[in-house]
Amino acid sequence: MAAWSERLAGVRGVLLDISGVLYDSGAGGGTPIAGSVEAVARLKRSQLKVQFCTNESQKSRGELVAVLRRLGFDISEGEVTAPAPATCQILKERGLRPYLLIHDGVRSEFDHVDMSNPNCVVIADAGEGFSYQNMNKAFQLLMDLENPVLISLGKGRYYKETSGLMLDVGPYMKALEYACGVEAEVVGKPSPEFFNSALQAMGVEAHQAIMIGDDIVGDVGGAQRCGLRALQVRTGKFRPSDEHHPEVKADGYVDNLAEAVDLLLQHADK
Amino acid sequence: MAAWSERLAGVRGVLLDISGVLYDSGAGGGTPIAGSVEAVARLKRSQLKVQFCTNESQKSRGELVAVLRRLGFDISEGEVTAPAPATCQILKERGLRPYLLIHDGVRSEFDHVDMSNPNCVVIADAGEGFSYQNMNKAFQLLMDLENPVLISLGKGRYYKETSGLMLDVGPYMKALEYACGVEAEVVGKPSPEFFNSALQAMGVEAHQAIMIGDDIVGDVGGAQRCGLRALQVRTGKFRPSDEHHPEVKADGYVDNLAEAVDLLLQHADK
Repeated sequence: MAAWSERLAGVRGVLLDISGVLYDSGAGGGTPIAGSVEAVARLKRSQLKVQFCTNESQKSRGELVAVLRRLGFDISEGEVTAPAPATCQILKERGLRPYLLIHDGVRSEFDHVDMSNPNCVVIADAGEGFSYQNMNKAFQLLMDLENPVLISLGKGRYYKETSGLMLDVGPYMKALEYACGVEAEVVGKPSPEFFNSALQAMGVEAHQAIMIGDDIVGDVGGAQRCGLRALQVRTGKFRPSDEHHPEVKADGYVDNLAEAVDLLLQHADK
Repeated sequence: MAAWSERLAGVRGVLLDISGVLYDSGAGGGTPIAGSVEAVARLKRSQLKVQFCTNESQKSRGELVAVLRRLGFDISEGEVTAPAPATCQILKERGLRPYLLIHDGVRSEFDHVDMSNPNCVVIADAGEGFSYQNMNKAFQLLMDLENPVLISLGKGRYYKETSGLMLDVGPYMKALEYACGVEAEVVGKPSPEFFNSALQAMGVEAHQAIMIGDDIVGDVGGAQRCGLRALQVRTGKFRPSDEHHPEVKADGYVDNLAEAVDLLLQHADK
């Protein structure tokens, strides 16, 4: 593999995944990953642009930022690209009235959305909300629609909480796709529109940006397909087999965000 | 399309799906489909062999037969080919110890199965048992296995209860497949082994047998791939779009089991 100086040359902006990179979520707010609070602070003191790019869909953007600030992270709402606000925009543009299969923690993002007489289903990481009853309601609604529309906030397979690996929205999206014979529209990583909106927020072109995430498919593969470079951290949901993934090869693997920032501050934008 | 006399010539054995053909399941035991009790009786008085071939996995075979007998059907356990007993056989042959993600109603079928220290997951139509907690436990177990084995009792998309369409095991099988990156082994229709064991029970060759079901993919497509003929009834989960399915074309569509039996008694085995 090429030297880091070559792999990181010309990077001007950094997209940071949150869960599994900054912290592991869990009971009581979760746990910061060692070195990440300081790493974010160093990055923000540098010349590099920073934007947080998350598929978090259990919490509103405000609540997520509050949790991270309590853990010591320097982060504000405007720096976070998240799927719920992007979804509200789409619903508005297309006159869609959703049935929401989502976590109560993110419901406030949809406060101003018309939900009468639903003509689509929006599915997010609902956690315990993925009951048979709620899934069946979403299913029956889609089967009753002449043109069924299913919008999924991300399609991650699983994430890591402090208590262990947890099913993410992706498996439940697949369940509804199979049950109804529809294909979901994904809002969030790895959708190109989502990466592009995060790049726009930084004012940086794809070839000048690098994604740092713990998901070899959603973060690394998704970013690379958009023309960004991407590093995988060996924290969060990382598994050793990711380094031999049959389809995706990261531009580099690092132990954690702290190591990634060390390398970036040494080699980027040279 | 050819005349019925041609399409049904040489039929000597009939495989009957149960849910959606004999009755619609539901609260209080369910409701027989008009004409089906009498149709089964007429079929059994004829020269034709009959076997019931079901993916029912919420009830034990004994309980299913008891429900059907209460509704007036002439049926006994030995006439029913069902996935739970077939699964127990597979578990025994391969030394597999399952974590069961199943409905309480079928648990008695697994009474003599060793479930200590599980090395596989068996998923069936668990209904309300498909909680996030249970799905997550199955997921975590599969992720911890070096050689994950997922056995699914059927892969139906949905079925019809008296209260409406309900999600079947298939969507949840797909969810675990996607989450874990594994492919499930299906025991039940449309697996060829399953159709063959039903044929064996009747003592009839595939080309002499016809399947009657309400599922265009699982019943009709599955049977045809095994060399059987197949009729779809317009009861149960039948939807008008099934008659224009992009991949599967039944050998005939009939309003209900009563019409199918009329035609068979007139034209079969001639």
